[in-house]
This record gives sequence, structure tokens and C-alpha cells, in this order.
Amino acid sequence: MDLKKYIADIPDFPEPGVIFRDVTPLLANKDAYQESIRLISEFAKDKKVDVIVGPEARGFLFGCPVALALHCGFVPVRKPGKLPREVISQSYDLEYGSNEIQMHSDSIQAGQNVLVVDDLLATGGTVEAAITLIEKMGGNVVGTAFLIELEALKGRELLKDYDVFSVLKY
Amino acid sequence: MDLKKYIADIPDFPEPGVIFRDVTPLLANKDAYQESIRLISEFAKDKKVDVIVGPEARGFLFGCPVALALHCGFVPVRKPGKLPREVISQSYDLEYGSNEIQMHSDSIQAGQNVLVVDDLLATGGTVEAAITLIEKMGGNVVGTAFLIELEALKGRELLKDYDVFSVLKY
Repeated sequence: MDLKKYIADIPDFPEPGVIFRDVTPLLANKDAYQESIRLISEFAKDKKVDVIVGPEARGFLFGCPVALALHCGFVPVRKPGKLPREVISQSYDLEYGSNEIQMHSDSIQAGQNVLVVDDLLATGGTVEAAITLIEKMGGNVVGTAFLIELEALKGRELLKDYDVFSVLKY
Repeated sequence: MDLKKYIADIPDFPEPGVIFRDVTPLLANKDAYQESIRLISEFAKDKKVDVIVGPEARGFLFGCPVALALHCGFVPVRKPGKLPREVISQSYDLEYGSNEIQMHSDSIQAGQNVLVVDDLLATGGTVEAAITLIEKMGGNVVGTAFLIELEALKGRELLKDYDVFSVLKY
């Protein structure tokens, strides 16, 4: 199944010079969506994953069905102010400025095997920040999985200490 | 299985006087999460659902695994500025002010059977706005499903023309 047919390429979004890879046609096609989830689950099936971690909001689109498929729990990574209990936070650099993510400070148990799932691997900054938080809580990151990898942005190098899987490479 | 055990009640979040029902312990528990998805899928299984619609971001947490379970596509409802192609928009009133949601204007095909899934039914404003957009595109809303229903806020009355299911009532 040629899943790239279901990715819409949007030039100059959200800013000039960027090609946005829009996953919504893939989500809307039941066979393409199921096949994506199957491929990510297949990558992870021998890793004894206890819990999936996914960043808000598009990470939920892939991480949550993978949690169902692997019979795992799911832990969200959120933007500041969204989680109601005690959190731990991590900042990471953007081209201009920085971003911050948060997780509940009791969301990962020491020794748990964690798979991080997101829609897109670009520079890898968000996922690297999530890994920092997971490891602070004692979690064991057994892999990272993405629907799309933008190879030119070298996120795979930033995540070189981890097993990185992507369904589609650009 | 007593799923309410996995909902954390957070007083005065996000503002004084509100009890926030935090679903993250339920998501993190694989059995509780799977059981929630099973119950929503069971409600919908004879409705010939073609596509699940879920509002950003917590609607993705439940809508996406239900899409996997029912072998459906998924269409996200997003806040303004997030969707890269042509959108249709709908505003709805809040206690103070108003909110706006968007969907891609080609995201629902005429005649498709749509199930709307969200984490929480409060006043029902978000889901009513999503239904307006779905029906504008010719979709047929066959039901709405929520993990949690706050009965005092009477969302079920606002959605009285639709089949409303909730896993947990407060």
C-alpha cells in the first residue's frame, strides 16, 4: 500500500519556504490509517512496551491507536498549563526561541519500557525533550516511532542512542 | 471494572469552583483504557460508522483508538490556524466569550455515517458546533460518545436530536 498517496504536501505552511506534510487524508482513509498503525505496532511488538508516550496533539493521533494495538497504557506530553496535577517540565530550542513540554511527574513508573510515538520526526527536539523527562522518572525508552521522517533535518542523529522507526521518509 | 477509580478529581482546576475530571490515570492503565474503548465501540458497532470525528486534543485520545477498533477513518476537529487546507469554521458560546473550531472543508463525504467522540460532555457546545460542520458537508451523525458526562451541565439536552452515549456519569 503506497501510504505517501495519502499525505498532502502543502507548500508555504505554516510559513513561506516550508512544505507541510498533512496527514489528514491518511487518517480519513480507514485502510491507510490502519496500515500505519500496524507498521508501527509491528516495529514495537518484541520490545515489551509497557506504555506509549505521545506529544500533544498530533502524537495522540498515532500513539493512542498503537497503545490499543499493543495493549499498553498511554501517557500524554502536553504544552504548559494543560495537565492538572504536579508536572515536570523540559524546554527545548527552536530555530527562533524555545518551547516547553510537560508530563505529570508520576506518569512513568521506574523500570517501565516506553515507546515514544509522534506524527513527524523533524529536528527531533520535542521527542528528545520527552525522553529527558521519561528518563528522569526512571523509564526505559525502548524506541521512538513516527509516521513521517524529514531526513534533511537529521532528527535521527539527535536520537542516535535510540531505536528510531519511521513509516514514511521524505 | 470500576473505571471511576481511574479518574482523578482535581478541585479548582483550571479555575476556582470547578472540579476537573482528569482522565490521565485511566489512559495510563492499559486495562482501564482498553475497557473504555471497548465500551464506546460496543455502543457504535451496529451504527455502520464510516468515520470518527474528534475534537482537539483530548477527543483524539478516545476517538482514534475507537477508529482503530471499528476500522474507520478519523477526522480531527481543530482550533483555528492548525489545518493547512481549506476549512469551514463554526463558533460557539462559552460562559464568557466564544470559541471557534475548524474542519477541512472536504473532510466529510456526503452520506457518510459519522460518530463524534470526545473525552467529556459538559454543556455540549463543542460537539454541537462539530455536528453543524459535519451536517453542512452532508454527513449523517449516527451518534455521539464520551468517556465522561457531567449531567448537571445538560449537554444531553443540547444534543437531544442525537444518540448520546457516555461511559461514566458524574
